Amino acid sequence: MLCVGGKIVSVGTTKDALRDPWLKRNRKKVTEVDCAGRVVTPGFVDSHTHPVFVGPRLVDFEKRIQGASYEEIAAAGGGIRSSLEAVRKAAKSELSAKVLAALQDMAAYGTTTVEAKSGYGLTVESELKSLEAVREAAARWPGTVVATLLGAHTVPKEFQGRSRAYVEIVAKKMIPQVARRKLAQFVDVFCDKGAFTAEETEQIFAAAEKNGLGVRAHMGQLSETLLWPFLRFNPASFDHLDHVNKDDIPQLAKRDTMATLVPGANYFLGLKEYPHARRLIDAGVPVALATDYNPGTSPTISMPMAMSLASTHMRMSAAEAMTAATINGAWALRVADRKGSLEPGKDADLAIFAVNDYREIPYWFGTNRCEMTVLNGEIACGA
Amino acid sequence: MLCVGGKIVSVGTTKDALRDPWLKRNRKKVTEVDCAGRVVTPGFVDSHTHPVFVGPRLVDFEKRIQGASYEEIAAAGGGIRSSLEAVRKAAKSELSAKVLAALQDMAAYGTTTVEAKSGYGLTVESELKSLEAVREAAARWPGTVVATLLGAHTVPKEFQGRSRAYVEIVAKKMIPQVARRKLAQFVDVFCDKGAFTAEETEQIFAAAEKNGLGVRAHMGQLSETLLWPFLRFNPASFDHLDHVNKDDIPQLAKRDTMATLVPGANYFLGLKEYPHARRLIDAGVPVALATDYNPGTSPTISMPMAMSLASTHMRMSAAEAMTAATINGAWALRVADRKGSLEPGKDADLAIFAVNDYREIPYWFGTNRCEMTVLNGEIACGA
Repeated sequence: MLCVGGKIVSVGTTKDALRDPWLKRNRKKVTEVDCAGRVVTPGFVDSHTHPVFVGPRLVDFEKRIQGASYEEIAAAGGGIRSSLEAVRKAAKSELSAKVLAALQDMAAYGTTTVEAKSGYGLTVESELKSLEAVREAAARWPGTVVATLLGAHTVPKEFQGRSRAYVEIVAKKMIPQVARRKLAQFVDVFCDKGAFTAEETEQIFAAAEKNGLGVRAHMGQLSETLLWPFLRFNPASFDHLDHVNKDDIPQLAKRDTMATLVPGANYFLGLKEYPHARRLIDAGVPVALATDYNPGTSPTISMPMAMSLASTHMRMSAAEAMTAATINGAWALRVADRKGSLEPGKDADLAIFAVNDYREIPYWFGTNRCEMTVLNGEIACGA
Repeated sequence: MLCVGGKIVSVGTTKDALRDPWLKRNRKKVTEVDCAGRVVTPGFVDSHTHPVFVGPRLVDFEKRIQGASYEEIAAAGGGIRSSLEAVRKAAKSELSAKVLAALQDMAAYGTTTVEAKSGYGLTVESELKSLEAVREAAARWPGTVVATLLGAHTVPKEFQGRSRAYVEIVAKKMIPQVARRKLAQFVDVFCDKGAFTAEETEQIFAAAEKNGLGVRAHMGQLSETLLWPFLRFNPASFDHLDHVNKDDIPQLAKRDTMATLVPGANYFLGLKEYPHARRLIDAGVPVALATDYNPGTSPTISMPMAMSLASTHMRMSAAEAMTAATINGAWALRVADRKGSLEPGKDADLAIFAVNDYREIPYWFGTNRCEMTVLNGEIACGA
């Protein structure tokens, strides 16, 4: 594979690459990486992460082990809300350092493109601060970051019982400011029981559309929401989908909206059930995999772990998991023209694994076989 | 913590350590490791691994995803038997290189003591070759290896329907030769449906006892076997225990026999059920955790992964998982006098993690936070 200026120029035999006229003139300028006995894959596209938080949620973790439910943890001051206070107080530089550390960890596990959501601030000021922290971290990382405003992550305590007023703030303040300052490409909504209703989600989607931002949503994690009414907004992705109405499946199969599955959350919550990937894939719905990296329900940055969960608990073949972790993730972020596959003209985003067969990536679970990552042509070493 | 000559001399404040008279005279000879902002734990004791194999079993992996059962995979020429041919053909040096690579990976994830079983040869010659390979690898690794003969892993094809004749070979040839050449400390038996019966297990245990070797057994993975009749052999551990008769639990609670749980196998097999750790722990049965590292059902070397599974799917607290991964593993190998805790007089086996709280070790699942491992006083760097 010959990469020049951060782009893939050719993919083929070494002999073919050596015939390249540019290479003949510039041989000495080129860094050669011998990948014999290795597997080279497209860098992973982690299309669903929540990296703007301050610390782990160990109290939630312990409480859940003791048998507390999601709702009980939230009622005890845990859950999403417990991350809010820390993010609101944090300096932008502290948040940006946390995001950068996560991006670097991700690269060590083979990820080269990351979607990064805000959503632990939930005030205009702290959501903007969170997205600025993402921008600062992205500027210091050679990979590619796609930012998403998740102002509608949960209704903050101070708006309890007044979600309509909070949605107004998201739609009329956060979204226009984020759009004006180009702080995000997408707007996300957590549409579920205990979070935002379908009607509120539509209102937020409409505001995003009006402001020229793409939309995506957390759907069907805790309960079923009918998806087809949202398709008129042309969402890039519906994420989670533990619960899907059977009538939505043929609709999804016909559209560009990706079904993004995040089994790390099911794993970490100790659930026995995982999203029904086979039901979606067998019906022709395009499926992406992501880590859902977040402190409450999926504290992992590892795409190989997400692939392992998909293979062992969702009956996705290693090939399906690899597709879902690369090109389908790129579709979910609307960057498939530049990311997610090893083709001439695409960005030089590669992961090099110390294995003989790509199926070993999900097979050797819980460990990292990534030896090197190349991000937009820049070499980063593995963990 | 002051370590001298591969042993822990003192554990306490830096001020206390500096008062040590030996240290005062030898300050310049000492390597100082600053662990501020880190967590230092006893090195993990992985008390159940099968590292003597040649390659991954990717065909089993794919077949299982397609829905084939353990028995169907075995019938199709997969399962344990498919590793046998490769090990029988392999040179000892090839096996020893594979074992050493696994030991080094384990150390990078915090493990300093490893039990290593033979069991993919199942002829006198290939079982001896496997244990010699373990010995060779152990000699090149600074950590501690406890070797186990698992000649009774499965009935090899050439003895199908004649398991009695194979058990005779294990009891009368393998065990005496292994004991004479001091190639193993323990004898293990896979006692289950499709493997060896309780009667055959007793026969093998009796031979081990006669030859001065300790015993341990795979029990209750696929079906329930009554455990108490084996207690007269004083086994070091019963491993797996997905199925346990309730009458055995009070017996186990009274004895030194460890219950070793290996949730990696449940995970990788895509099972919804895990061993009932709470039932055992709450009844006073000592529980150890191990990886069960093997190519067919648990291809992971990561003890943090085993701890994560224990916390998220077996409701073991982080403290219980840490105990199970360290001192209880040491008890399961009868090395608790030297291993498994940070106490003066014990071997200097430490793992240093880039976290602020030990609970983060199972929390950040699928990734490696181990930064450095010290094995019998020798520093090895993390992954």
